[in-house]
Amino acid sequence: MNKYNYQDYLDFNLKISDLNGISSLLQWDQEVFMPKESMNGRARQIAGISGIIHDLYTSQYYCDLLNNLENDISLNKTQKLNVKLSIKDLQRKICLTKEFVEELSSAISNSYAAWEEARSKKDFKIFSPFLKNLIALKKKEAEFIDKSKEKYDVFLNEYDAGLKSSELKIIFENLKPQLISLLDQIEKKEKIDISITNKSYPTNKQWDFGIEVLKEIGFNFNSGRQDISTHPFTINIGEKDIRVTTRIVENNLNEMIWSCLHEGGHALYEQGLQSKTYGIPEAESCSLSIHESQSRLWENHIGRGLSFWKLNYKKLQDLFPENLIDIELNDFYKIINSVSKELIRTNADELTYHFHVIIRFEIEQLLFQDDFNVDNLPEIWENLYFKYLGIKPENDENGILQDVHWAHGSFGYFPTYTLGSLYAAQFYEHAKRNIENLEQKIANGNFSELSEWLKSYIYDKGRLYTSEEICISSTGESLNSQYFIDYAKKKYGEIYAL
Amino acid sequence: MNKYNYQDYLDFNLKISDLNGISSLLQWDQEVFMPKESMNGRARQIAGISGIIHDLYTSQYYCDLLNNLENDISLNKTQKLNVKLSIKDLQRKICLTKEFVEELSSAISNSYAAWEEARSKKDFKIFSPFLKNLIALKKKEAEFIDKSKEKYDVFLNEYDAGLKSSELKIIFENLKPQLISLLDQIEKKEKIDISITNKSYPTNKQWDFGIEVLKEIGFNFNSGRQDISTHPFTINIGEKDIRVTTRIVENNLNEMIWSCLHEGGHALYEQGLQSKTYGIPEAESCSLSIHESQSRLWENHIGRGLSFWKLNYKKLQDLFPENLIDIELNDFYKIINSVSKELIRTNADELTYHFHVIIRFEIEQLLFQDDFNVDNLPEIWENLYFKYLGIKPENDENGILQDVHWAHGSFGYFPTYTLGSLYAAQFYEHAKRNIENLEQKIANGNFSELSEWLKSYIYDKGRLYTSEEICISSTGESLNSQYFIDYAKKKYGEIYAL
Repeated sequence: MNKYNYQDYLDFNLKISDLNGISSLLQWDQEVFMPKESMNGRARQIAGISGIIHDLYTSQYYCDLLNNLENDISLNKTQKLNVKLSIKDLQRKICLTKEFVEELSSAISNSYAAWEEARSKKDFKIFSPFLKNLIALKKKEAEFIDKSKEKYDVFLNEYDAGLKSSELKIIFENLKPQLISLLDQIEKKEKIDISITNKSYPTNKQWDFGIEVLKEIGFNFNSGRQDISTHPFTINIGEKDIRVTTRIVENNLNEMIWSCLHEGGHALYEQGLQSKTYGIPEAESCSLSIHESQSRLWENHIGRGLSFWKLNYKKLQDLFPENLIDIELNDFYKIINSVSKELIRTNADELTYHFHVIIRFEIEQLLFQDDFNVDNLPEIWENLYFKYLGIKPENDENGILQDVHWAHGSFGYFPTYTLGSLYAAQFYEHAKRNIENLEQKIANGNFSELSEWLKSYIYDKGRLYTSEEICISSTGESLNSQYFIDYAKKKYGEIYAL
Repeated sequence: MNKYNYQDYLDFNLKISDLNGISSLLQWDQEVFMPKESMNGRARQIAGISGIIHDLYTSQYYCDLLNNLENDISLNKTQKLNVKLSIKDLQRKICLTKEFVEELSSAISNSYAAWEEARSKKDFKIFSPFLKNLIALKKKEAEFIDKSKEKYDVFLNEYDAGLKSSELKIIFENLKPQLISLLDQIEKKEKIDISITNKSYPTNKQWDFGIEVLKEIGFNFNSGRQDISTHPFTINIGEKDIRVTTRIVENNLNEMIWSCLHEGGHALYEQGLQSKTYGIPEAESCSLSIHESQSRLWENHIGRGLSFWKLNYKKLQDLFPENLIDIELNDFYKIINSVSKELIRTNADELTYHFHVIIRFEIEQLLFQDDFNVDNLPEIWENLYFKYLGIKPENDENGILQDVHWAHGSFGYFPTYTLGSLYAAQFYEHAKRNIENLEQKIANGNFSELSEWLKSYIYDKGRLYTSEEICISSTGESLNSQYFIDYAKKKYGEIYAL
């Protein structure tokens, strides 16, 4: 007889997920509504709930429960898969001592504060010693987690199970020359004038348009909502409660539209996952790469596509006639797809974006080499930007200090952005092959077949399959960057008449 | 040597208060922003955090800690008072078995659902059996808590420590004839036409006005915020985070203004309490009666006073010239102070309000008599409304079913509303005696001396003193309803030319 059954496992994980949702609500509120003087109290509340979750999650009870279920022959295949992943998750958690977790967490807090100061003073040297310390700790962490793997690969796996830097290298090496050639051709063409997007777009009208777009693509406002925050994000607050935020800038039409569609794509995935049993791996997202594929599919393949604007451009013109009445649909389409080599990753277009990622990937591999000197980073950064994009940052703020990821101890995160784009291109191409006249349907506002396709091939898989497995089952092959290249060549070939 | 010191006590209570704040955030979000399908998940999250708080609070650790500190001779007077109150709080909590708490909690859930159904069907008989069961349980609860006291007094004490129904009776018996005489005189006068308050007042302008009013009276938006909800409330989300909500109805100017000032008054008290050590009795409110005195002081004595509108009426006219341009300040003042006998407590004016409370108080005393038959309640209700106000409800919805309190198991709560008004009148009269030209200062927008007075006589006392003690130390005598009567006679004598 087993001491525990599958229902105990479900109950326990529901409890943990409810508590994680509470932690998310505390963070969401902090970003969106919290009055500023409450910062200290809120930090304490978040730390308090984290401690409670940690104690419960690493309790002997749960360990016994999982050990018991591991050998429970009455479980079906799906149940076994869920339990197996939960065991892996727990092992990952308990391989680190409490002392080490606290040391790392404190190093991250200090490193974040130093990064903020360094950034405001545009001086990497302020951040440098903290980054060195953090990397030393992350090396230790990698050893605790899995001695048998390359350290950097350990972190890649945090975001995308099974991902290897050796495979990433091959993918990126294939991407680089083709993208460089495309960018070279575009550079020879006349620049697209995008000044129209910087006219005045009253924020309340932008907000209304964003809400309509979210409704259009299928975001369920009965189990989610949108608010405003400085940095747009998607967050899971609890069962049937997925929230997105957007940023609205009066003199920049782009901010709101793309953040709405990007976070909307993440949120559709999260809402789609909630048809499974809440709290266990089958109802969790597969990986950061697949998550990002969903945001980019909606942001780029739909949102920056001509069909979407056939459907929506008239509405946008009606909202802002003073700015857009004389701009034709085709010109608007070109404007929102203009390509330009810029210093800041988050402002980058669909093509140059990947060099921002490749540069960070190449640097991250160096960071985990034994003899690497962190002090050389600004110079390496500068050289790589010049090598790939022909531009150089004027200072550290526009260069090496622009992203928060490393200060937060997140290494191996950046590649998932590019993987997301590559997956998105592959998924979207296969969706088009599977759904008759998909582009026409989008132009008519009919997203239902695409939603169904995503649901059955991606959402419904939860975390029970790897990125690779989801890719093969939905497209018949492993990740193949040629889909993205073909998409880019066709789209930008037309826009720039290459 | 003591095993625990005062710092341990502070640390523990800070932890508990942080968790209580988290529970408040979950409730606040539910009332203000939560998408509707998340209801079940949210109920689970609130129950989960309540369980965690309960286990921690009733742990052996805290019990040992308090026992230890009770005999710690190194504590100063204030520390001793804090510990003493905490011991009382804990005893109050642990005198009930877990089984009983669960039984009561489940009875309340069922009773609330039955009340909702009964209300929608305007039929008390649906609610009646649940109310009977709830009263039986509450009688048991009273015995668990304190066998030596009258049962109803036990509940009065939950909201106002030391309060007795025998004393309340004396206060209310003094109030009744004088209020009845005042209302009789008013009834002989011409009714004030208040139709102007039901014209169209665009909600966004009402919102702006409410925010200005909150700023004016000293609400700190850096440690609090206002939002919209169906039922206005004030809530403590955590250290330096006090939030209020308001309701805005386009065709009713009154809703927003009075809820803003009422909740604003509660919030000023809560923000004022936060200058003490967060988490222990010295930083908690004294009682519901004193809390209500603060909301009513700002809502009625300030907000329905002429000085406040000398300061603000021009602004209101400028916002809504189409409605108010032809209404003189003095007429507006009369309109917002119009007296009228109505069936619904929450819509009542400053004078008739107290009969709504007295009726409920008289009924609540009956409820805890052994031979009382709950089925007779609608008839008793009708008779009392006819006796005191000369009106009768057409149905149970407008009558016995209008309030949620009893369905929630809250008995003895209503009297604190009237006590709040009486305290407010007494406090405000003494503030006027202490602050030179207070009314003139208010008309000039200078609230600082009044705020200082409230801070030193009320906010700074926390829960270390009873309502009675606060009253004596600030006004030199115990609660005296004559202050309210004198205030009412003078104000309404002028308004109605009695």
